[in-house]
Order: sequence, then C-alpha cells, then structure tokens
Amino acid sequence: MISIEEALTKILAEVSKSNLESVPLAESLGRILAGDVKADRDYPPFHRSAMDGYAIKSKDFDPSKIYHCKKEIFAGMESKLDPGEEIVKIMTGAVVPEGLDAVVKIEDSQEIESGNPISKVKLKSDQAFQFMNIALQGEDLKKGELVIGSGTVIGMSEISLLASLGFDIVPVRTLPKVSIISTGNEVVSVGSKPLPYQIRDSNSYSLIAILNRYKIQPNSIELVPDDELKITEALQKGLESDILLLSGGVSMGSMDLIPPLLEKLGVKKIFHKVSLKPGKPIWFGKKGKTVVFGLPGNPFSVQVCARIFLDPYIRSYLGMEISRPLRFPFYGKRKKKNSLPEFFPVIFETREKTGLRAKSFNGSGDIRAGLSSDGIALHPGEQSEISEEDILDFYPW
Amino acid sequence: MISIEEALTKILAEVSKSNLESVPLAESLGRILAGDVKADRDYPPFHRSAMDGYAIKSKDFDPSKIYHCKKEIFAGMESKLDPGEEIVKIMTGAVVPEGLDAVVKIEDSQEIESGNPISKVKLKSDQAFQFMNIALQGEDLKKGELVIGSGTVIGMSEISLLASLGFDIVPVRTLPKVSIISTGNEVVSVGSKPLPYQIRDSNSYSLIAILNRYKIQPNSIELVPDDELKITEALQKGLESDILLLSGGVSMGSMDLIPPLLEKLGVKKIFHKVSLKPGKPIWFGKKGKTVVFGLPGNPFSVQVCARIFLDPYIRSYLGMEISRPLRFPFYGKRKKKNSLPEFFPVIFETREKTGLRAKSFNGSGDIRAGLSSDGIALHPGEQSEISEEDILDFYPW
Repeated sequence: MISIEEALTKILAEVSKSNLESVPLAESLGRILAGDVKADRDYPPFHRSAMDGYAIKSKDFDPSKIYHCKKEIFAGMESKLDPGEEIVKIMTGAVVPEGLDAVVKIEDSQEIESGNPISKVKLKSDQAFQFMNIALQGEDLKKGELVIGSGTVIGMSEISLLASLGFDIVPVRTLPKVSIISTGNEVVSVGSKPLPYQIRDSNSYSLIAILNRYKIQPNSIELVPDDELKITEALQKGLESDILLLSGGVSMGSMDLIPPLLEKLGVKKIFHKVSLKPGKPIWFGKKGKTVVFGLPGNPFSVQVCARIFLDPYIRSYLGMEISRPLRFPFYGKRKKKNSLPEFFPVIFETREKTGLRAKSFNGSGDIRAGLSSDGIALHPGEQSEISEEDILDFYPW
Repeated sequence: MISIEEALTKILAEVSKSNLESVPLAESLGRILAGDVKADRDYPPFHRSAMDGYAIKSKDFDPSKIYHCKKEIFAGMESKLDPGEEIVKIMTGAVVPEGLDAVVKIEDSQEIESGNPISKVKLKSDQAFQFMNIALQGEDLKKGELVIGSGTVIGMSEISLLASLGFDIVPVRTLPKVSIISTGNEVVSVGSKPLPYQIRDSNSYSLIAILNRYKIQPNSIELVPDDELKITEALQKGLESDILLLSGGVSMGSMDLIPPLLEKLGVKKIFHKVSLKPGKPIWFGKKGKTVVFGLPGNPFSVQVCARIFLDPYIRSYLGMEISRPLRFPFYGKRKKKNSLPEFFPVIFETREKTGLRAKSFNGSGDIRAGLSSDGIALHPGEQSEISEEDILDFYPW
C-alpha cells in the first residue's frame, strides 16, 4: 500500500496534455487560457484625465489669472488645441490634448462668466504640477507587454482584461473527454423506486459536480450491473475517453470484477490501494492516453478521492498549477483509532479573537458526510489525536 | 456620503424575493434549494454489512467451532435465513439477514473445506459483539428526518445526497432577470478596433462573471452612447428586469446623464455615493420590483462594487446567507493617504511557520488590478497604515 504522496506522484506522471481550441469570450469563464496574452496597445492608450476639471499647462499655472476657455472635451472625443489655446474643460476619461499637462479638478475652479463660445474661469488649486490628475499613456501597460500567462484560469478580472484587449475569441485548453461508470447490482438510477435492499446511484453526481468546476460535461454516464459481459462492454466504450471514472466494485468482495476485467482489456495497473481513509481501495491505471480511476463505492470516499486524486489530475491535464492545501489552525479536538491518514469534513469559521479556524463537522462518514462543509482536513496518520491550534492541511472543496 | 455598512443595509432592505421552479438534478448544481429535503426512508435502508466476511449470531460465536456455510449474500440481493441456518457469507453493502447480528471480516476467517452447497469455515476473530461491522438501519438518517434545509447551495455533497434520496427533479429558487447597460461615447464593443481615444467595453464581462457564479445569464447586454434618447430607451427596457446594472456615467461629469434620466423614469434614488475607494460614485435606486445599481466606469471599481454590494443583493434575493468576510492576519505593510476605507487586491498564501496569510498584490488600481488575485481586503478608513499581522477583513472573489 503506497502513501498519498506516492499515489499523487504516480498519477501526475501519467498526465496527458490537452490541446488548444478557441471559444467566444463570454463562454471562456472558468476555462484555462492557452497562450500568453500581450497588450495590443499602450494602456491607457493616451494621456487620460483622471478628473472632471480644466486641463492647462502646468508651468503657466497662475491662481490669480482669469482663463478663457472655449472648448469642452469628453471621453470618446478627439482632442486637439487650437493655436494659442491654453486651457480646455475636460471630463474624466477624456484625452488630455497635446500641449497641456495638468488637470485642475472642477471643485477647485470658479466660473466667473459662463458663455458661448468663451467662458471665463479662475483656478483656485494650491498648485499644478506636471501630470497632476492625469493617467499617463502606457502607465498601466506598455504595448506588447505580457499581461496574462498561459495556464491562467479565466475569472472575473481576466475576462474583463481580455475584453479590454479585444479578445472576442479566446484560445483555451481543450477539456478532457470523461466517461463515468457506476457498478453494482444494488445500485439503481435516481429516478427509480429502489427495493428495500437497493440504493440509488449518487456517486455519478458527485463526479459530475467536481468535473463541473472545470466546465467539463461528462461524455457518458452509465449504470451497469455486476455482469462481466455488460461491464466489459461499458469499459470498452469508456476507454475511448481521456478519463474513465468508475465507482463501486473495487473493494475485496467476490463481485469485485472490475480490476481483472480492466487488465484483460489492456489497462495497465499503476497502483491499487493507498494508505488513506476513506478511499483506501482506490485503483489507478492507464491504457494509451486514457487514465482509469477506480473509486470506492461509498459516497464520502468518492468525494475524498475525487478531491485528492482526480482534481490534481484534471488541473495538470489542463496545464494549471496543482492547488496546494491551505494550512491554518484547527479549532477543537479529534481522535482516531487507526494509523491511516484520515480525511474528515470541516467548516471554516472566523473567530472574533484569533481569526480564521477550521472546525470538525459532521465527521461520521455517513451518507451526510461532507454536507454543508467547506472542505476536508487531513488528520495525519501518525497522530492519534489532534488538538486545538494544531496547524493542519485543509482542502477546500 | 454614507458608510459601506449603511449602504449595505439600504440595499438589503430592498430585496425582492425569488420564486420556485423545478430543474433536473444534473442541472441543479450551484442553484439554491427551495424547500426542505427530508429522508424518503431510513438510511441505511437495512442493516448493512460494512465488511466482506461472515454474518453470524453474536451470542453463539465460538472461535473453536466449525461453521457450515451454504449461502453467499451480495449487495443488491434479498437476504433471508433458511430454518436452522446460523451463518452466511456476506459482502460489503449487502443486507444482513434477520436473525444474524455480527459480521466477522474475511481476513479473520479460515475456509477449511470449500464446497458446494456447503463450505466449512472457522472464525478466528477475538470476539463478536452485537452489530459488529454492521451499519444499522436508520443510523445515518431516519425516514422523515430533515437532511438539507431550504436555501442551501447545491454543491457536490448536496447533489450526491439528493441523488441518494431520489430527487431526479429538484425544487430551486428562480434566478433574477438581469440587464446590463454600459454607457459612454468612448466605449466600443470587444470585437471592434478602437480609435486611439476609445476603449473597449470590459465592465459587462466583469458583471457576467459575477452573475455566472449564481448561474445567472444576463437577459440583455447593451452598449449605449451618451445620448439621452438612446439611454432612455435602454433604461426603459432594462427596468423590465429584476436587476438593472449600469456601468459608466455616474461620476460628476457633464455627460453623466444617467441619474436624472433614471429619476425621470420613476426610479427612486436610495443612495448616491458611498464612503469607499474605489467605487465612491455608486448609485442605487428602485422602481417597483426592479433595483438599479449604477456602477462607476473604472474596471476595478466595478469589480469591487459588484463584490461588496451586488453579491449580497443576489444572495439575499436567492434566499442564501450573506457571506461574511474572512478575518485573518495580513502579511506585509500598506499605507494610504486618504481617509476613505480602501479595498485592495490580495493573494492568499500559506506560510511555513504561521499558516494562512493574505498579501497585498498588484494594488495599483490599474487595468490589471485584481488580476490573479484571490480576493480583496479592506484597509479601514481610520487607519493610515496597516502592519504585519494586523487582522483584516478579506472578501474572496
């Protein structure tokens, strides 16, 4: 039986790489950028007024002077001085015309005579220095500068910036094709009324949920009874995907047909069983470009294995960084009997005096385990008890 | 100018409530459960073997005895003792037959003679107590027991449990209808090639991103020049939605047509300007069931205002709890000149010795602000400097 770290290393050694495709900007949310994004021009693209006010030449500033202003410049307008012109009224976001270099804000001005074409104003600012209230051309970004690196998840800030830079079409990583197979004679579909000795398939939905975070829709979801022929058929089809997820059927029972059938189909076993709880019987293998995760049948085991093993595989497949666990203090106490490293659900709460803590939550491993929790924490194998303020590894869902 | 807390109170006082609708289970991810979910039967629905092994009567357990076993019970099978039968072979997940009450695991057994119909086994367990290795009927959940409360977000654990309980159709809260209008003569669409004095519309995409978290697709997205007639038309259409989001045009400039036009259309102003940076010029109003957020034009301002004001509105609309900020120590130093409370982007990092800290990140408020950050932190108004280990409020994106 190998350790969690060894299992993870073996899994990540088998990662196939995704390809590139293009999607419309509005559909790029949550996808992974493929290729570096550079600025198409300077940002701001011009010297931009940061205030509503009057643009002047800073070196000619004189608070006692009456300025004659005959032009008002708005954002989105071309902006040019006429010969002899030394002041313009200017709005936030507008281009500061060449020849002027400071903006005195409207609150510091006094209109002495409003008129058309000429109004007379006094500027009561204490000072006017060069580039006062002006965002300089290229001060945010220089044309050609790297802005977002390949492999970045497209979130709110990224999509906004891609829009600014004119990416109506975005190059992203292709998503893996995923097949899900649940096995077990006792398992019936969600829509059925189970007999007393049957249960409904819930594991497929846990897996759909974790795939959904990466915008992956499974290619196929099948529920197969413990029948060699039917399982073989389903596996053959599933092996055409990039990732094949199996749940149920990988423990020690007589009905645990799957590992031998996988090997018969040419899937090479990479490991079987990992020292962790829950999820010990996990099986992992590969055939060609397809990796196969055999997950235990218990709902909480599936969720833990998906978070600890499948999530890093998918991230790596998509060219993302693996998310490291968060480390911060635990609130409360927890004992365990077993020497296996043990995952248990936690909620994160901010405590008045000490700040963020994680608290054990509904840790019974029952059908409800994980419900309303923020993530899972790792109770280290060698430690029979964890106490208040111990710093643990937390894996948000 | 009101405080952030006052603004939030006023916003939450105007929340309209969503209705109910039903969606297929696989589409319920990320939606808000409408109505309490109760267990349709006991879970486990029967006394379930937690191990592969032999089920026996605990009080008759005898490690020296040779048991005659003639039946093997798998998960998904009916399970019944024949008269006189005192042992069955049993697999994990199978029903423990009535009359037996302990499971000795397979590793603690020794098959002395394998045979059909009868095999002979010895059980080498130290003991066999009542309900050993058995999950009792109803031990996880009793029939009729409340399992998931109304208002819960449907995540991985929830969807898995809803599947177990047979919810192929799920009652959820309806999503608000949202319209987005960006204004400004300087703003052109993402697909256009802007003139030197123009910029592309990016704010609509920030708003799409925040709505997307709640599975909300905006009804309409419009880009309107600073023209009274065109803005009025767009506003009239937008006021048919539940939430109207405007960006640009709410500062002090001459082109800031929107607040008076909104009031002309019967939208009651609830507040204008909040003491925060960035985002001070925010405008909020209501007409009938429709609330209107007028957001400043700067991309980072839109993101901050969306996170601080729009997000709680949407959560409350959907019947969710408002997410409180996380509080934990800051890493580094930060100064500000201004007395306004100031939001700045941070990244969360786990430091070897102290655990989780937030670090200021790219705080320049430029076109890139927020990029690759994990959230924003609040630099309190009255504090000109924050120092290492100060506990701050953090708002993850």
